[in-house]
Amino acid sequence: MHIEEAKKVVKKQLTTKRYEHTLRVCDTAIELANHYGQSIEKVALASIFHDYAKCHSKETLKEHIISYQLPTQLLDFHHELWHGPVGAKLVEKRYDISDENVLNAIRYHTTGRQGMSPIELIVFVSDYIEPARNFPGVEEVRELAKVNIETAARIALKNTIIYLLHKNATIFPDTFLAYNELTKRRAK
Amino acid sequence: MHIEEAKKVVKKQLTTKRYEHTLRVCDTAIELANHYGQSIEKVALASIFHDYAKCHSKETLKEHIISYQLPTQLLDFHHELWHGPVGAKLVEKRYDISDENVLNAIRYHTTGRQGMSPIELIVFVSDYIEPARNFPGVEEVRELAKVNIETAARIALKNTIIYLLHKNATIFPDTFLAYNELTKRRAK
Repeated sequence: MHIEEAKKVVKKQLTTKRYEHTLRVCDTAIELANHYGQSIEKVALASIFHDYAKCHSKETLKEHIISYQLPTQLLDFHHELWHGPVGAKLVEKRYDISDENVLNAIRYHTTGRQGMSPIELIVFVSDYIEPARNFPGVEEVRELAKVNIETAARIALKNTIIYLLHKNATIFPDTFLAYNELTKRRAK
Repeated sequence: MHIEEAKKVVKKQLTTKRYEHTLRVCDTAIELANHYGQSIEKVALASIFHDYAKCHSKETLKEHIISYQLPTQLLDFHHELWHGPVGAKLVEKRYDISDENVLNAIRYHTTGRQGMSPIELIVFVSDYIEPARNFPGVEEVRELAKVNIETAARIALKNTIIYLLHKNATIFPDTFLAYNELTKRRAK
């Protein structure tokens, strides 16, 4: 699917605010893909589609998780985590996108996971650092993103886990496994 | 095994400082067992033995993990986490202690785990709050321990995970699973 066509399709699914965020993530991701020699096309497609299911209601997301037999473990965690896996599945079904790198980047953009590919890392980090993001720690990750995408992702995961712990929220296993993996790799 | 005999045995394995810590954990645990109507005998035995393997060298601990076929996943994490599982195994073998509650309280006193029994929770929390412990957050857990042992354990786990994240350390899966479980239970 061509990127301009993807933009049109996604625009209809999102609020203006969310669509503008999406465009900023895409710009950031393209910059990083250039920097790290990754496929611009894949990174752009994944970031345009990353929030495809974000504006679906909790009920609709739940129905999709059940009907598409996505991991039901998701339902034990905050519904904020559901739009990634659902979005990946809908995009695959509706627009015939089959590239696993693109689908995984959409699927895991909120939680991260163990074994993220460079394209997944770029989309994950871009969602965290796009220019309108403004929370404690974002500047450090923005700087790191230019130097080492794994380190940037590691600090983003760490910040997210600390934020959730302070809120007394549960941590989705993929998030913590991704943090552990990148932290172990750093130690070596 | 009688508690006085256990003290003699453990004293020989530990430095004076570590043995005194052990006695304080035992006193704290007995108080909590009284408070929560749990077996004084089991709680005392588990807390006397909880650091049985603490003064073993890293090499010895590693040998025991391998020879007793304890989870080799342990070796991928900080050696500070090894003395619990090794201690439980040695105590079982050497002193014929077979009570699973006692052994699990020893085994998981550093990491915690999903599905901790009241006796495990008491030993875990007592190790965190014994009177000589003095770090940020300990007073809150001390107060909570008198009210709700699960909440006390949850906050101890949360504090530990935040501490480890700030140190850029990995988090042992059992610790994070224990935190998630108690946090989910709290939400209900």
